[in-house]
Amino acid sequence: MTSNLHAPNGLSIIPVAGIPEIGEGDDLAAVTVANATLRDGDVVVITQKIVSKAEGRIRHIKEDDSAGFERLVAGEARRILRRRGTLTITETHHGFICANAGIDRSNTAVDTVALLPLDPDLSARRIQRRIEVLGQVAVGVIITDTFGRTWRNGVTDVAIGCAGVAGVVDLRGTVDAQGRTLQATEVCIADEIAGAADLVKPKDGNIPIVIVRGLDSSYLRPSSVSAEIVRSPQGDLFR
Amino acid sequence: MTSNLHAPNGLSIIPVAGIPEIGEGDDLAAVTVANATLRDGDVVVITQKIVSKAEGRIRHIKEDDSAGFERLVAGEARRILRRRGTLTITETHHGFICANAGIDRSNTAVDTVALLPLDPDLSARRIQRRIEVLGQVAVGVIITDTFGRTWRNGVTDVAIGCAGVAGVVDLRGTVDAQGRTLQATEVCIADEIAGAADLVKPKDGNIPIVIVRGLDSSYLRPSSVSAEIVRSPQGDLFR
Repeated sequence: MTSNLHAPNGLSIIPVAGIPEIGEGDDLAAVTVANATLRDGDVVVITQKIVSKAEGRIRHIKEDDSAGFERLVAGEARRILRRRGTLTITETHHGFICANAGIDRSNTAVDTVALLPLDPDLSARRIQRRIEVLGQVAVGVIITDTFGRTWRNGVTDVAIGCAGVAGVVDLRGTVDAQGRTLQATEVCIADEIAGAADLVKPKDGNIPIVIVRGLDSSYLRPSSVSAEIVRSPQGDLFR
Repeated sequence: MTSNLHAPNGLSIIPVAGIPEIGEGDDLAAVTVANATLRDGDVVVITQKIVSKAEGRIRHIKEDDSAGFERLVAGEARRILRRRGTLTITETHHGFICANAGIDRSNTAVDTVALLPLDPDLSARRIQRRIEVLGQVAVGVIITDTFGRTWRNGVTDVAIGCAGVAGVVDLRGTVDAQGRTLQATEVCIADEIAGAADLVKPKDGNIPIVIVRGLDSSYLRPSSVSAEIVRSPQGDLFR
C-alpha cells in the first residue's frame, strides 16, 4: 500500500447491507442507524424508491395499463417537453426534467408504481434531523433518482433532495495552480455524490442506502436541490 | 467500525499526490506508476488538462483576446448550438456538446489555453496500455472534463475518453428485487466514475490523477466514450 491510500482527502463509498423491504410509515432514519455505524461528516445517500414507499407514494396500476400510466404521468407533470414512443420527457411539479415524471415500475410490487416524493428536500431534511437525534452524529442526506441526459447515452443517479450537504459549491474566486482567479466554476457536488453512490448499488434495488465518507468538511452545510440545482427556465437555453 | 466498512463492494476514491507540472511529450503512464501503487482492477481517472498538455494541445493567446478565443472555439467546433453573452454551446468534432468546444484557460500558463485531445479514447487506450506494461497491472483509464448540463445548475466531471472500463453498462434483462425484468436501464458508469473522482480534486488543478478502487470486475472491459456515450443526433430529442 502506498501513502496515497491514506490520503486525508480520500473517499470511501460504502454500501449498507441489510436494509429490509420498506413500507408506508417506516422510519428510514431508524433503519439507517440500525444498519450502519455513522461518523460525523458522513453523507447518507438514499434511493428515492424507498423514500416514496415510506411516504405512501405508491399507486396501484396494472402492468399493461399504459393509458392509466400516462394519466399518472400527466398528474405529476407541470409540462410535457417531448414525446417519442413510450418515452415522455416531462417537467415535474418540482421543476425536474426527466422521463415520465420520475414514475417507474422497477423495484415496486407487481401492479404498482412509485411517484416521486412531494418535496424531496423536506424528506431529506426530516431524515437528516432524525438520524442526528437517533445516531448522535452530524450527517448530510441526499435522496437520489436515476435521470437520462440530453446528449449522452446512459442514465446516471442525481440528487432530487438534499439536506446538510451542499448542492452546488461555488469555487469562483478561488485561484488555480497558476494563481489565476477561476471563473464560473460552480460544481454540482450533490450530483457527483449521487453518481458515486450508484457505483456500489446493484440495479436489483437491494442496496438502497450508501454512505459516502471523507468529503471536504466545507461541503457539509444547509442545502436544497430545489434552490441550488434546479435551473430556472430563465437561465435555460434548451427548454 | 461496522462490517459494512469492509463490504466487498465498497469503493475507495484515492487522490494521487505528487504529480509534477506536465509538459508536451511527458509520459503520463510513467508519472502515474511513479506516484501510485496500482492494483489489478483499479481505474485511473485523469484530468483532460494534463492529457492536452502532454499531447501539445496548448495554444498561445492573450488573456484579453476574445476574438482570437472565438476563432479557436470555431476551429474546434463542428456546430454552434446556442450563444448567450460569452458562452457558446458547441458540438465539438468528437460530438461532445459543451461550452466553448471544451477550451478553457484554467490551470494553463498565462496567455495560453488547452484544446481537448484530438481523440481522447485513443489517448486513454495508449495510457492504459503503457501503465499495464510499466506497472504490470490491469487497469482501466478514464479521461475527464468538466461539462455543464441542460437543466441543472453546476458543472460535473464526465468522461471524454475511456479504455479498459465500461462507458455504459447495459442492465436490461437483469431482474429487480421483485423478480421483474428491468427495462432500459443503461447506466453511464464512466460519467459516474468521473464525477466520483472529482470529489477529491480541488479545482486548483493540483490533483489531476485519481484512483478508483473496488469497482465491479465486470465493468473492466474494452470500451469507448465515442461509441458508447456520445448520443447520435438521430437519438437526440433536444439538438
